[in-house]
Amino acid sequence: MSMNPCDIIRKKRFGGELNEKEIRAFVDGVVDGSFADYQAAALLMAICIKGMTDRETLALTLAMAKSGDTLDLSDIDGMKADKHSTGGVGDTTSLILVPLVACCGVKMAKMSGRGLGFTGGTLDKLESIPGMSISKDIDSFKRQVRDVGCAIIGQTAELAPADKVLYALRDVTSTVDCLPLVVSSILSKKLAAGCDVVVLDVKAGSGAIMDTPEKSRKLAETMVRIGNMSGKRFSALITDMDQPLGNYIGNALEVEEAIDVLAGRTEGDLKTVSLTLGAHILRNAGAVATIDEGIAMLDEKIRSGEGLKKLGDMIEAQGGDRRVTEDTGLLPKAPMHIDVKAGKSGFITHFNTSDIGNAAKLLGAGRERKTDELDLSVGIVMRKRLGDAVKDGDVLATLHVGEKSDRIGAYNLLLKSIGIGDEKPEPRPLIQAVVE
Amino acid sequence: MSMNPCDIIRKKRFGGELNEKEIRAFVDGVVDGSFADYQAAALLMAICIKGMTDRETLALTLAMAKSGDTLDLSDIDGMKADKHSTGGVGDTTSLILVPLVACCGVKMAKMSGRGLGFTGGTLDKLESIPGMSISKDIDSFKRQVRDVGCAIIGQTAELAPADKVLYALRDVTSTVDCLPLVVSSILSKKLAAGCDVVVLDVKAGSGAIMDTPEKSRKLAETMVRIGNMSGKRFSALITDMDQPLGNYIGNALEVEEAIDVLAGRTEGDLKTVSLTLGAHILRNAGAVATIDEGIAMLDEKIRSGEGLKKLGDMIEAQGGDRRVTEDTGLLPKAPMHIDVKAGKSGFITHFNTSDIGNAAKLLGAGRERKTDELDLSVGIVMRKRLGDAVKDGDVLATLHVGEKSDRIGAYNLLLKSIGIGDEKPEPRPLIQAVVE
Repeated sequence: MSMNPCDIIRKKRFGGELNEKEIRAFVDGVVDGSFADYQAAALLMAICIKGMTDRETLALTLAMAKSGDTLDLSDIDGMKADKHSTGGVGDTTSLILVPLVACCGVKMAKMSGRGLGFTGGTLDKLESIPGMSISKDIDSFKRQVRDVGCAIIGQTAELAPADKVLYALRDVTSTVDCLPLVVSSILSKKLAAGCDVVVLDVKAGSGAIMDTPEKSRKLAETMVRIGNMSGKRFSALITDMDQPLGNYIGNALEVEEAIDVLAGRTEGDLKTVSLTLGAHILRNAGAVATIDEGIAMLDEKIRSGEGLKKLGDMIEAQGGDRRVTEDTGLLPKAPMHIDVKAGKSGFITHFNTSDIGNAAKLLGAGRERKTDELDLSVGIVMRKRLGDAVKDGDVLATLHVGEKSDRIGAYNLLLKSIGIGDEKPEPRPLIQAVVE
Repeated sequence: MSMNPCDIIRKKRFGGELNEKEIRAFVDGVVDGSFADYQAAALLMAICIKGMTDRETLALTLAMAKSGDTLDLSDIDGMKADKHSTGGVGDTTSLILVPLVACCGVKMAKMSGRGLGFTGGTLDKLESIPGMSISKDIDSFKRQVRDVGCAIIGQTAELAPADKVLYALRDVTSTVDCLPLVVSSILSKKLAAGCDVVVLDVKAGSGAIMDTPEKSRKLAETMVRIGNMSGKRFSALITDMDQPLGNYIGNALEVEEAIDVLAGRTEGDLKTVSLTLGAHILRNAGAVATIDEGIAMLDEKIRSGEGLKKLGDMIEAQGGDRRVTEDTGLLPKAPMHIDVKAGKSGFITHFNTSDIGNAAKLLGAGRERKTDELDLSVGIVMRKRLGDAVKDGDVLATLHVGEKSDRIGAYNLLLKSIGIGDEKPEPRPLIQAVVE
C-alpha cells in the first residue's frame, strides 16, 4: 500500500475506494506540501466524477477536521450545540436561535468563518452592532459560553486548514459543487469546533448552493449520515429558498429583523425556520422530547422577553451596545431609500432569489472578493412574498442605498428578479424535509 | 463562449465536447501560463475519465503542433517520411529502415526526443558510434536529408512545447495512459516535424505502453484516423512485444544487431518488422504499389549492400566513424559477460518483456530520470525465443555488465522474467494488425 500521490490519484481515477491511510496522506499532504497542488487538483476532479463512498467521505471529513486545531469544550458543563446553514438570502436564523436556545439551557458555541456571499456572514451582521467585537481568544470564548450560555465569534483557532487549501483549489478548478467535497468541507469545521449537537439548514431553491431539490436532499442526507457516523448528533432541515427567508436583506437590516422577531413584533418564515432549527437542537441535546415541545419552549422565550435579553447579554459580553435590542435606531442606517414598484397587477409568481442576493451585493451588502469592504447599512427590504396580490404601482421592495452603491444595477436586477403573473401560484412548503 | 479556464474545465467535467477555440485556449494557456498547472491537471483528469471525440483529439493535436516551431521541409524534393514506435524492448527498427528506405528514394527526416525507457532512445544508440553527433542546426539537417537521403538527429527546434509541459504534468498526476492524450502527444510532434508520410509501430504485449491488445489496436486506429484527418498519410502496424523484438538489448548492442541485419547476417523478427514498416512508408509515399513489392525492394537493398553503405553515409555525415558498419568491434564493449542459465528443461512459454527491459535498465542501459547517465556498452543478449526448447543449464541470455551495473538485481529480474514450461506454446503472430 503505497502512499505515493500518483498511486492514490490513479486509484480514484479508475473508481477505486480510497482507504483511510490514503485519504490521510492526501489531506496531510496538501497541508505539508507533499501532495502538490496540481496533484490535489487531479484527485479532486477524479473525486468529482467518480464520487466517494460514505466510508471515504467520513475519512476525508475526519482527516480534514484533524488537519489543524481542534477545540475541546468538554470542560463546559452540559450539551454544546452548533448550527450551520448552506447559505441563503435574508437568512439570519443564527441571531434568533442562538440566544433562544441558550435560554433553554443548551449552550451555543458558534465559531464562524467570514465567507463570501450575497450579504456578509453572521460575523459582518454582528459587526453592525456598535462596539460589538467578534474576536476572542479561546479561553474567553469558552468563559462566555459557560457564563452567558452563548457566543458567536470569528475563527481564532486554525480550524481545518486543509479545507482552506482545498477550497481555494476547488474554486479555480470547477470542483466546488461535488457532494463529498461539500460535505467534508462543512463537516470538518463543525467537528473541529467540538460541539456535541449540530443542526444543519440546507437550502433548496433558486437561491441555494445546490441547484435542484434532489441535490439539496442528497446533501442533507449525506451530511447527517456522515455527521452521525462521526459520533455527534446531527439533524438537517431542508428549507425553501425560492424566496428570501426574511424580508430584510443586508447586514444591519438583518440584525434589525432578528431583533424584531425576538421582540415578538415579527412573525413569518424567518421565525418559523429559526424556531424549528432551535427545536431540533433542543431535542437532539435531550432538553425536550419532541420538536413541537421545543418550538413551544422557544416561543415562550420570545413572549417572556428572555430571548431578547439573552441577545443583549451576548452583545454586552462581546463589548457591544446592548441598547440596540431596545432601539434598532442605533444600528447604522443607509442615507437613501428607493422604492421598486410593480409595473403591472397580478400575483407574485416567483422570485429569482439568487439575483435578489446579487442586487444586495451590488448595493454593497456582500463581497465579491475577500478584500471587498462592506457597507453594513445598505440592503433591501422586501414588501411582498410569493402568492401576494399586487397592483400596478405597488411597492415591491425598498432599496437602502449608500454612497458607493450601484443603485441602477441593483434596481434593474431586483425588478427583473420578481415575477408577476395572472395566476396565484400554489403555496410551497417552507420546511421541505427533515433529515435525522 | 468564454475562454475562462474554469468554464473549459467544467464543460469537460460534465462530459461536454470542447471546441477548437477552447482547446487552443488550453494549449496556449499551458505554454503562456494563463492556464495554471493545477487547472491543466484538473482538465487532464477530466479528459482521462470523460474522453475526447475525434474532433477534439484532432484540435488538441493541431494546437499542440502549433504551440512551438514547425519544420518546413517543402524545399526538399520528393516525399519526406518519418516513423514512430510506441517503444519496446530490443526495438531498433529505425536504424535499419531509415537507410534502407532512403536507398529507395524516399527521404527519411527523423528528429527524435531523448525519452525515458528501458534502454536509451535512438539518439543514445547512435551516440555509441564513435564520433557520431546527433546535434545539427535545421539548415544542415535539411542539407543532409537532401544530399544523403536520411538523417536522425536530436530535436534542435522547439517542437510542440505544450507537449513538454503537459507530459511533465501527466507524469505526476497519473494521467499518462489516456488515449487522446497519448495520441495528441505523439502526433503533435510528428506534425510539427513536417513530413508527408508517417508510419507508426504500435507495440502490443507485456512490454508495451498499452497493456491490452484492444488498447493497442484502439491507439493505432485513433492515431491513423487523426493523423489522416490532419492531411498527412499515416499507417500503423501493431506488432508483438510479448518478447523482445531483436535479441540484443542495450545501446551499442542494438547498433550491432542493426548492422548485422543490414549486412544480411541476421534474419528474424527485427528484420521482418523493420522491412514491413519500411514497405508501408514506400507504399504511402507512392514509391511502390504494394507492401510485398516494398519488402522485396528493401530486402534487395540489404543483399546489394546499399543499405549498409547508406548507414555508413549517414554516420559519416554526422561526424561518426563509418568503419563500424564493417567492424562492430569498434563499438563500446562491456568488460564482463554473465550467462543466465535455465534451471529446468522445457519450452520457453513466456517472457515478461517489460521486466527484461527493466533488467537492462538495472545494468545501466536505460534511464530512470532524465539526468541519469547511461553506460552505452551494457545490456542483454537473449539466446532463446518463445517456443524454443531448452535444457536445464542452457544459456537463456547473456548479461553485458559494466562497472556500475546492478548485476545481481538484473540477473534475478531477468531469470524471473523468463517462463519455462512443459508445453510448447502456440506461436503468436508477429504483426498482429495493419491499420491504414
